[in-house]
Amino acid sequence: MASSFKRLLIGKPIATEQQHEERLSRFTALAVFSSDALSSVAYATEAILAVLILGGIAALSNSLIIGAAVAILLVMVGISYRQTIHAYPQGGGAYTVARENLGELPALVAAGALLIDYVLTVAVSISAGVAAITSLAGTWGYPELRHLAVPLALVCIAIVSLANLRGTKESGAIFAIPTYAFITSILAMITFALIRDAMFGAEPVVHPIPPEIHASQAIGLWLLLRAFAAGCTALTGIEAISDGVQAFRPPEAKNAAATLTTMVIILVTMFIGITYLAHLHGAVPNELTHETIISQVARTVFGVGPAYTFIQIATALILVLAANTAFADFPRLASFLSRDRFLPRQFASRGDRLVFSNGILVLGLCSALLVVIFQANEIALLPLYAVGVFISFTISQTGMVRRHLRLQSPGWQRSILISGTGAMLTATVMVVLGVTKFTHGAWLVLMLIPILVISFQTIHRHYQRVADQLSLTTAVRPRSVRRLTAIVLVSGIHKGTLPALELAKSLAPDNVTAVYVNLEPEHAERMHTRWREWGCNVPLVILESPYRSLITPLLKYIDEMEGHYRDDHLLIVLPEFIPSRWWEHLLHNQTGLLLRTALMFRKGQTVVSVPYKLER
Amino acid sequence: MASSFKRLLIGKPIATEQQHEERLSRFTALAVFSSDALSSVAYATEAILAVLILGGIAALSNSLIIGAAVAILLVMVGISYRQTIHAYPQGGGAYTVARENLGELPALVAAGALLIDYVLTVAVSISAGVAAITSLAGTWGYPELRHLAVPLALVCIAIVSLANLRGTKESGAIFAIPTYAFITSILAMITFALIRDAMFGAEPVVHPIPPEIHASQAIGLWLLLRAFAAGCTALTGIEAISDGVQAFRPPEAKNAAATLTTMVIILVTMFIGITYLAHLHGAVPNELTHETIISQVARTVFGVGPAYTFIQIATALILVLAANTAFADFPRLASFLSRDRFLPRQFASRGDRLVFSNGILVLGLCSALLVVIFQANEIALLPLYAVGVFISFTISQTGMVRRHLRLQSPGWQRSILISGTGAMLTATVMVVLGVTKFTHGAWLVLMLIPILVISFQTIHRHYQRVADQLSLTTAVRPRSVRRLTAIVLVSGIHKGTLPALELAKSLAPDNVTAVYVNLEPEHAERMHTRWREWGCNVPLVILESPYRSLITPLLKYIDEMEGHYRDDHLLIVLPEFIPSRWWEHLLHNQTGLLLRTALMFRKGQTVVSVPYKLER
Repeated sequence: MASSFKRLLIGKPIATEQQHEERLSRFTALAVFSSDALSSVAYATEAILAVLILGGIAALSNSLIIGAAVAILLVMVGISYRQTIHAYPQGGGAYTVARENLGELPALVAAGALLIDYVLTVAVSISAGVAAITSLAGTWGYPELRHLAVPLALVCIAIVSLANLRGTKESGAIFAIPTYAFITSILAMITFALIRDAMFGAEPVVHPIPPEIHASQAIGLWLLLRAFAAGCTALTGIEAISDGVQAFRPPEAKNAAATLTTMVIILVTMFIGITYLAHLHGAVPNELTHETIISQVARTVFGVGPAYTFIQIATALILVLAANTAFADFPRLASFLSRDRFLPRQFASRGDRLVFSNGILVLGLCSALLVVIFQANEIALLPLYAVGVFISFTISQTGMVRRHLRLQSPGWQRSILISGTGAMLTATVMVVLGVTKFTHGAWLVLMLIPILVISFQTIHRHYQRVADQLSLTTAVRPRSVRRLTAIVLVSGIHKGTLPALELAKSLAPDNVTAVYVNLEPEHAERMHTRWREWGCNVPLVILESPYRSLITPLLKYIDEMEGHYRDDHLLIVLPEFIPSRWWEHLLHNQTGLLLRTALMFRKGQTVVSVPYKLER
Repeated sequence: MASSFKRLLIGKPIATEQQHEERLSRFTALAVFSSDALSSVAYATEAILAVLILGGIAALSNSLIIGAAVAILLVMVGISYRQTIHAYPQGGGAYTVARENLGELPALVAAGALLIDYVLTVAVSISAGVAAITSLAGTWGYPELRHLAVPLALVCIAIVSLANLRGTKESGAIFAIPTYAFITSILAMITFALIRDAMFGAEPVVHPIPPEIHASQAIGLWLLLRAFAAGCTALTGIEAISDGVQAFRPPEAKNAAATLTTMVIILVTMFIGITYLAHLHGAVPNELTHETIISQVARTVFGVGPAYTFIQIATALILVLAANTAFADFPRLASFLSRDRFLPRQFASRGDRLVFSNGILVLGLCSALLVVIFQANEIALLPLYAVGVFISFTISQTGMVRRHLRLQSPGWQRSILISGTGAMLTATVMVVLGVTKFTHGAWLVLMLIPILVISFQTIHRHYQRVADQLSLTTAVRPRSVRRLTAIVLVSGIHKGTLPALELAKSLAPDNVTAVYVNLEPEHAERMHTRWREWGCNVPLVILESPYRSLITPLLKYIDEMEGHYRDDHLLIVLPEFIPSRWWEHLLHNQTGLLLRTALMFRKGQTVVSVPYKLER
């Protein structure tokens, strides 16, 4: 029953040989790889304004200069990543680049930072997508929908997880339609608004409930740095193309680099455009209605009509796609780590549908947990976000500098200049992010990263130890087993005991004993009587148990037996009867399970489980 | 580590032979057995008033007549139970009496009703005890404490559960002090108040916040019946002495009957006294402050001082003792049911400390759940309470009538009159309770009882089936095993595989095969090469697995093998390597466990687990 339910949800298993990689055109690849980066314009401007508002309405005008700084950073990082694409046409994620050029520790730090950020990508994107929908519902007269934000977000995460467990064929269309709808509608809105504002002047945003604004902080360098740090969330996802160069049609590197350039241009245009429009129309983050900045701007530009609705839905869809990207990235990175034995093996095995099911499940659960803890409020989640990305940026760029220095291939000086500038810039931003966001949640990420790194190393050492101990290079051929001794543990004498006794006699013809633990003193005599008739001529030992424990006297007896016969191989024979219905297992003492665990795992004994199947 | 933590909480194991029963004097027995019954005066009056108030302030004066009716019922039931004590000096719980005189079904109904009521006893008593403390804290100026009622109640349940898991020696003193403190202080309060009121006239209760009272119902028969039903909670626990006659010093029955009489007299005096004082001083249940009636009365009589504090603390303590009584009753009844195979065997086994640990744990968890659901509000819980008690009263009294009819021992006509009157009275009250409380929560109990009864019967049938199938009366002596075939399932060739191969060769010298499931096509050749060197001359079969499943191809292969050799006993040999640290188990595919489960439980194969212990 459980298995057919799984079939229904996930689909039929797919054979290994059916695995193939679809090569993507530039047009499709832009849609597949850029949803995470492009969708960040849905919250990056809002994140900047949400910080600036702490300095009062007057502080909001600083959004333009901060937007410009973020845009410059975006372009620099973009140029730097073009280098990575050319250097690693096989796919150059931060983990790969760092492992090859900087060594294990930086690679693990980058990996830990990225894993955390993928979880945050899902939580932030889904929360922001739900916010786009609830903002839309608010203008339709259903503002109550935002109280359902958490369940809505959880349903979205469940759907995306399930789709990935089924193994979505990444057929371009699914990605292309929402991505291009989003790009087109946002660019159209910006163009339309600029033209109209130039002709008629900009109208201020109509606030349904104007928020009370208290200037709680002075407008100083600290506030501006915090706002800048908040805006840096626009850079998340920019590295996606460099991870997936192999998915492009040949020439892979050239196509990937061109796509990256296109993406950065579109991203910068949309980000600057939205930030400018928000400034022009005086959009303000509203904690009361939780209406997004994009919604406020779009509503002011187009009025509440089809165009506005289209923008909101396109925004929600591209945000869900952004979450979906993390569902490809997280399991892949986890499988790399698992392949290199830094994570449990389970992350490297492909499930029924050829996807890394365990990575998908872990990502879905962690992000659902975040959504519940942060009540699907993406603005509250943002301070945790982007810290990890900038750590991995810095490590990756530094790795590239080392690589250029080592290889000294043609034009290496210029490459070092680009990567070095990128590394320094991202390192600076990383410090700014870590410091300004520290008390707002970044401390959590900065604490989690070393914990993850230590876990990776502990797991690695364990696998290394196991491999050393199992290695045949130090093995001696085992002596063949001389003589077998069998001990049959019986819970009484009944039909289920007989096959175990017969089997034990044939396994160890010379040396079989049956052992019974007597919990109630008066039962011993009756047991002896019945044993004489039915005991198959096997000698019976009755153990007393003053403390009513089954396991303790048995373990003591087995220790004694081992002392007697040093040269033997001791077989513990356990008759286990098997109920015909699943719930009936609960009705029997789980003694068999307990005994097997104690004997196998604590004592290292060979255990022979002899089933006796009940028919009804 | 887990085991030493358990030692710390529960204490060292106690040997079976140390089990002994302490015989109690009348004085101590009253304290041990009556805390449940006596403590119900802490909420019974309040329950009556909480119903009457629905008819407005004027309706409250009916509390006296209702109190009198409940008192009469108490006396009648008490007289009836004296008969049970004399008839069942071995202990005559409703389950025992019904099983012997009425048959299985009524016995199971009584048992189900009682189990539910024990859970309610804990939830109600602990919640009322916490209310006594928060009422006290309210007069001290800490009314906020009542917001912590749920965590406080949960802590109390945890402490009482733990104390019972340790196996409290029921040394009389622990029970005697709070019980007699409660009796003395309540009787003193009643006497003092009556004298003072007679001399100076009764002062009205000072309400810190007078509740708004809306007469939502007319004062009619229905309201009075509901109020009467609410007051019947005073009868809970009255049967306790008849269950525990064996604990009395000889002559057991005579002492027990005398103690029951004393208890009923004290109970009726306290109940009538409190109800009268509440009426005289105009105490009203207050939903806003959640101050108990006892607290209101005591505060008015004594003022906020040491006497008032003493009463509140004594009330809280006797309520905790009442909960503690259920922790003796529930596990004992569950063990009777388990002994008769109506509940899983686990309820009949005594834990390390000679107590029925599983019953204690189940009771603790269920009552904690109730406390959380009902937010530790005992007034909300009361409509569920007492329904079960009256069902068991009725069944038990009816059983006594049948017994008298059957035995016709001297004076049987008089006995039938008493028991018959008791049965009819309690049956009437049972119907009144069921009908008036139905929509207020009793439906839940009335629905749960048949569910429990059906579960009891299902479990019983299962154990019966198992016993039939295991019975040796139909057994034929099994043929001795002719030939053994061994299949070794290997996950590769390494040090852990070698001992399993050697053992398999010695178990089935003629017929051993090793089977390897190949998940990655390119590994097959390497496996063959290494096997030639290290395979201990065992033939190797490599199975392909197009869908990356380990288990499916193995099960298919085993089916085929079984087809080949019909006469053999097939041994599946599983090499399992055992990490040296507990957390390391998580790092390995749980394939061994999955395979063992599939082979043993689905296929009914004999499985030989051969451990290979890792040293570090």
